[in-house]
Amino acid sequence: MRIDLNSDLGEGFGRWELGDDEALLSIVTSANVACGFHAGDPTVMRRVCARAADRGVAVGAQVGYRDLAGFGRRFIDVPPDELADDVVYQIGALDAFARIAGDRVRYVKPHGALYNAIVHHEGQARAVVEAVRSYDADLPVLGLPGSRWLELAEQAGLRVVREAFADRAYTPEGVLVPRRHPGAVLHDPDEIAERCLRIVHGEPIPAVDGTPVRITADSLCVHGDTPDAVRVAERVARRLADEGVRLAAFAR
Amino acid sequence: MRIDLNSDLGEGFGRWELGDDEALLSIVTSANVACGFHAGDPTVMRRVCARAADRGVAVGAQVGYRDLAGFGRRFIDVPPDELADDVVYQIGALDAFARIAGDRVRYVKPHGALYNAIVHHEGQARAVVEAVRSYDADLPVLGLPGSRWLELAEQAGLRVVREAFADRAYTPEGVLVPRRHPGAVLHDPDEIAERCLRIVHGEPIPAVDGTPVRITADSLCVHGDTPDAVRVAERVARRLADEGVRLAAFAR
Amino acid sequence: MRIDLNSDLGEGFGRWELGDDEALLSIVTSANVACGFHAGDPTVMRRVCARAADRGVAVGAQVGYRDLAGFGRRFIDVPPDELADDVVYQIGALDAFARIAGDRVRYVKPHGALYNAIVHHEGQARAVVEAVRSYDADLPVLGLPGSRWLELAEQAGLRVVREAFADRAYTPEGVLVPRRHPGAVLHDPDEIAERCLRIVHGEPIPAVDGTPVRITADSLCVHGDTPDAVRVAERVARRLADEGVRLAAFAR
Amino acid sequence: MRIDLNSDLGEGFGRWELGDDEALLSIVTSANVACGFHAGDPTVMRRVCARAADRGVAVGAQVGYRDLAGFGRRFIDVPPDELADDVVYQIGALDAFARIAGDRVRYVKPHGALYNAIVHHEGQARAVVEAVRSYDADLPVLGLPGSRWLELAEQAGLRVVREAFADRAYTPEGVLVPRRHPGAVLHDPDEIAERCLRIVHGEPIPAVDGTPVRITADSLCVHGDTPDAVRVAERVARRLADEGVRLAAFAR
Repeated sequence: MRIDLNSDLGEGFGRWELGDDEALLSIVTSANVACGFHAGDPTVMRRVCARAADRGVAVGAQVGYRDLAGFGRRFIDVPPDELADDVVYQIGALDAFARIAGDRVRYVKPHGALYNAIVHHEGQARAVVEAVRSYDADLPVLGLPGSRWLELAEQAGLRVVREAFADRAYTPEGVLVPRRHPGAVLHDPDEIAERCLRIVHGEPIPAVDGTPVRITADSLCVHGDTPDAVRVAERVARRLADEGVRLAAFAR
Repeated sequence: MRIDLNSDLGEGFGRWELGDDEALLSIVTSANVACGFHAGDPTVMRRVCARAADRGVAVGAQVGYRDLAGFGRRFIDVPPDELADDVVYQIGALDAFARIAGDRVRYVKPHGALYNAIVHHEGQARAVVEAVRSYDADLPVLGLPGSRWLELAEQAGLRVVREAFADRAYTPEGVLVPRRHPGAVLHDPDEIAERCLRIVHGEPIPAVDGTPVRITADSLCVHGDTPDAVRVAERVARRLADEGVRLAAFAR
Repeated sequence: MRIDLNSDLGEGFGRWELGDDEALLSIVTSANVACGFHAGDPTVMRRVCARAADRGVAVGAQVGYRDLAGFGRRFIDVPPDELADDVVYQIGALDAFARIAGDRVRYVKPHGALYNAIVHHEGQARAVVEAVRSYDADLPVLGLPGSRWLELAEQAGLRVVREAFADRAYTPEGVLVPRRHPGAVLHDPDEIAERCLRIVHGEPIPAVDGTPVRITADSLCVHGDTPDAVRVAERVARRLADEGVRLAAFAR
Repeated sequence: MRIDLNSDLGEGFGRWELGDDEALLSIVTSANVACGFHAGDPTVMRRVCARAADRGVAVGAQVGYRDLAGFGRRFIDVPPDELADDVVYQIGALDAFARIAGDRVRYVKPHGALYNAIVHHEGQARAVVEAVRSYDADLPVLGLPGSRWLELAEQAGLRVVREAFADRAYTPEGVLVPRRHPGAVLHDPDEIAERCLRIVHGEPIPAVDGTPVRITADSLCVHGDTPDAVRVAERVARRLADEGVRLAAFAR
């Protein structure tokens, strides 16, 4: 029994900090590092890559729309060709810091509105796939099971890694409940940890309406930018360890 | 007899174009490609890298201050540690496109106010050297003879390539006449070509006051963003070729 | 017989120039000046406002998405409240330069993808209307006849000014043919001038399929960023003048 | 006995928050609101202006270099003409939100590296003075006593308001001890409050070496972005009130 634990990191920018990168790097096995387009600056990127390398945490490129003002959370209708270029740029920039730290970018995970868009948006989904493939066809991609972009990634021969969201409610069909709906986000660390354990064991979890639903995942995502992010991540990690589940990056 | 001919390219941004990249890529042997901080966007970078690879032109990272509004022409007092990170980021991003094109970044040349600052600014000069060294200690750097940063680069074991400016006046001491001084910039293609030929042959050229001055250079820089840039570059290239000088990138 | 002639101006940014502001300011009666979010910088804004004031050209705020890389031509799903704030910010910034020039912002015209979005996008359309109303309820708005945002502007009590596009093809229903369709953009200055004259006289023009279609407009938009923009604008202005149509800003 | 209490506010940007604007607005009498170039976005600006108007806090334009990545804390060698334009742009943008809130921008205070530069930098100092004067010659400016830019502002006929820093050490000559020196920043709320009281009463405070030094000021600056900013500001405000000093904006 083993699973990967991933979290968004390196999301500060200049004077502005966000989340506790240090604490999360001591818990997670994969770090989705922002690459400067929606968050992250070169100094943050260097520091997070260095610490991740020290701790054996796999670094992934958390690529997003060019939108610091919106933190990458607003859909932008970027033409696919340009989007592919934006993604290559971000991966390359992060890879520089990963390599300086003695490692390299190990996977790619889109961020925010881009993550959501390419669940369905054919053109942008293809663009992200094409960007990864052209940069390094051996780079795994991390995303939502059933999303269009993971389908396309698989067809393109990329290694696809599926993630579940430890602190998010699912519909009976196994789809994420949109953030704005009541009950969409879970806060109780014990409940979240329990769900993680079930997912790892292939057991159903209760959907938002109570129906049991089975979620299959190679990685569990814990959020990094909420006030209690570290506490939740710690609880999840400890609970899994206590139950004999080994936390290990999928990409090393 | 051989010399490298370098020029700044890829300096458009989004809707805005600057210079005639296509034409210059058919003339020069080294392309200093802007990396997105002072100019250049991912789509421009991809396109220029692809064309450069097609034509056998060496791609260099034209790194600059983060200053689109000022086109990197305004000194910014960036703390050296952050500047080093900014430089690494830019090299990495460009390298991604160079590699996708089947090549790689072959050298580094700072741009604009950064180029000028590190002629003397110890901290920033060290930062650029450290950035290049940490990214790839085999990358040559291209710069002004006698500049502090080339001294430091040499001490750090980097290969140093010296350039002369084909269209700029020099003092009798071999220092560039500041742009704002009368006569600082030459415009006559024949005169510029003649000076290039003399530099290649190790013969003195007339300084701004007429005194003969000897300029040694491994590369000649022709500017890309003036209205007659292409015409000047063509004249220089043809004249050199006519006189039996082989144009060849220093970095391939 | 009188009509307003408007054009997008001030769309350079830093080192990058676009269009011939000087020439257009001697032709048009209303200048849609970019406000720094998709194009335009403070120095361009000051200069264009000063020249416009000298020539008696009315200055309008050409507000857009915050997207220099995309020149405001990519839809961004900005939450309406934030969009309203972005629009207020842009109008206020431009108004500073207009006032320094002894005038003031005389109207508001959205740019690019925002212009297109609010033809239908209820939330963003309301946001722009609300922004204008809150800044100055006496400011007219310039836009596409039949668009949702002009309807909402009218309901909100704003003065609404309708424009026709001199160099664009229309469907038989009077809707603009999308730019990418063949024949969507007209290039012959004489044909464009002839269409303008017909629109001013309330006569039908040939739709893209030849059907006569009547377009009513208080202002004619001539584009500023194409190579032959100035020539087309001059031809239109001269033809109208020759036929006794007076060119006059709607907003002074 | 009365004094103004000013603080930097509205320094968040998009997803990133900084300082507790709400709490500070219930304490200070003047709010230096960031205008989007080094910090602040339109939504933050609108909110802070609205709250400031509700509470009768005077809004000042905290103008800075265009440098989000450096938070305006890095000197940029902006040509004076361009700097003046940047300052006008920022004042105008903030004024829009102040006016929507039923008030207006009441003064101008430069931020960070610009604040420090114009203590001595003649060209940039003149540029800021010229920007304020051209926008509204009745706007007071807030700055460091003895600075070049306040001298120039006075010569230009602007109302000049001098500030003291409640939590910063001074040399025996009344000059601020640079931040990096030991003892440059005070942290004890009681000591800071005591110094404020002495400044208000025209009594000397101990310089960094213990020598008594007299600081004259019309306004006291309390910092907003440190962890204990609110606590310090509260202590200062309470102590002054307890001693019968009335807190009142200089600009209303």
